[in-house]
Amino acid sequence: MKIHTKAFRVEEGAAVDLEKRPTKVDPVYKSKTQYKNLLEDHVARLSSQQQLLYASNRYAVLLIFQATDAAGKDGAIRHVMSGVNPQGCQVFSFKHPSAAELEHDFLWRTTRDLPARGRIGIFNRSYYEEVLIIRVHPELLSGEALVDPPSDDKTFWHQRYRSITDLERHLHANGTRIVKFFLHLSKEEQRKRFLARIDESDKNWKFSSADIKERGFWKQYKKAYEECLSATSTDDAPWYVVPADDKENARLIVSQIVLDRLEGLKMSYPKMSAEHERELQSIRKTLTE
Amino acid sequence: MKIHTKAFRVEEGAAVDLEKRPTKVDPVYKSKTQYKNLLEDHVARLSSQQQLLYASNRYAVLLIFQATDAAGKDGAIRHVMSGVNPQGCQVFSFKHPSAAELEHDFLWRTTRDLPARGRIGIFNRSYYEEVLIIRVHPELLSGEALVDPPSDDKTFWHQRYRSITDLERHLHANGTRIVKFFLHLSKEEQRKRFLARIDESDKNWKFSSADIKERGFWKQYKKAYEECLSATSTDDAPWYVVPADDKENARLIVSQIVLDRLEGLKMSYPKMSAEHERELQSIRKTLTE
Repeated sequence: MKIHTKAFRVEEGAAVDLEKRPTKVDPVYKSKTQYKNLLEDHVARLSSQQQLLYASNRYAVLLIFQATDAAGKDGAIRHVMSGVNPQGCQVFSFKHPSAAELEHDFLWRTTRDLPARGRIGIFNRSYYEEVLIIRVHPELLSGEALVDPPSDDKTFWHQRYRSITDLERHLHANGTRIVKFFLHLSKEEQRKRFLARIDESDKNWKFSSADIKERGFWKQYKKAYEECLSATSTDDAPWYVVPADDKENARLIVSQIVLDRLEGLKMSYPKMSAEHERELQSIRKTLTE
Repeated sequence: MKIHTKAFRVEEGAAVDLEKRPTKVDPVYKSKTQYKNLLEDHVARLSSQQQLLYASNRYAVLLIFQATDAAGKDGAIRHVMSGVNPQGCQVFSFKHPSAAELEHDFLWRTTRDLPARGRIGIFNRSYYEEVLIIRVHPELLSGEALVDPPSDDKTFWHQRYRSITDLERHLHANGTRIVKFFLHLSKEEQRKRFLARIDESDKNWKFSSADIKERGFWKQYKKAYEECLSATSTDDAPWYVVPADDKENARLIVSQIVLDRLEGLKMSYPKMSAEHERELQSIRKTLTE
């Protein structure tokens, strides 16, 4: 079964209205068993695509996950990417930048962790925080080493969008294939998940008032995401707005999108030259003498 | 079923004679199905231990893999660690050092990639190459920025062993738990695997005469490994000499050893303080108002 994902894509230049984009859709699975089977099938195919990515050694793949708290980023990464050889897949989570990182331009710290050719790199949060949390809390800019403080607000953020799309264009031109996910959660579903976290003893030890602080800025985040998605979704590095109220469904959609991107690269194992063939036969001779 | 692994451990101070250590033992599995089931069970338990490692946030785990070519390092990492959340597990392969890396002391480049607390780091080859390949080919030392070139051979390598055990002692004292694997392959089994690689079209594209070059130094490597294992296996950071002629069996042994080490840490989810409990109840109130 092929899951259709086109509806979740943000086309280049399209204005994004998150009200019109669903946080919940009809699930693509009919039962827990079907969910499990579908996910297993996706993970197995992802795993073999990752081997091909490594063998063909032409592309790197960068997957970016952004979302509000409790939208399921960690769970999606865990369920979709466990099963892929960790030797070819690296996850980086970007939390508060260090003092040293703040002394650099805002794209610096994530750039160091970009995936090498043949690898899948996953950014759990990313340089996009620089136009999301920082946009919602512009006072944080005072910690960043800016040449000029932003005078004209609109120009400033558009400069940042431009820096990002320029970087992504450069990466694409040099072999990195980028897919960006916004896990779209409703405020009500976040409330339920927060309550569940408080009640689950395996989870509540890490839950604190800091986690619900950003919930108070729901509207501001909505606006920041809408502008960001509109300004930075491109044909080469598209955003997908994935309905996230149903975790399992979101994982199936995410894995289908990643799979489509990888399979679309039409990679193949390297072909041998006649010269290499001769070399191998000479090795064979040495080993069988 | 619990696999006994003590026989494979190199006790601190023990002299290692690789002739006396088997490259093949009676397999712990009786059939392909039993192998699959055992490995699946190990991987599932590893996955839950890794979650606990992350949650308890006290230890980091460093697994080091060393072996001759075709001994199954990549396969062991792939089969044992796929299934573990890639967010908590990072693999680093160390190949030829870069010019910039050679300008630093020999422990520098790997130190940058040590696992953070809560994570499993895997070194596919490691700083041990500095007392293995470099020992077999001491001419490579001319590329390293040494204060003094080695005058007395024995002193020089023992200085390196000492640097390594000092580093590992420091890491252990600061929460990193280290397990080191030497996959022990017979020369005859390596020959068979090389021949198989030449014949398999999914593999032979990456095979070249460079790969069999080191085979000519089999005896020198044996000696270098024996001295290295004797000098650097400690109670805190032990070496295991894993019989590797049977790949499947080696994976079961490796995963059992990792599992024993993790389960031996007796980690638990953090307990909540009364104050935190009150904080959670106040959040609960806000969310249900």
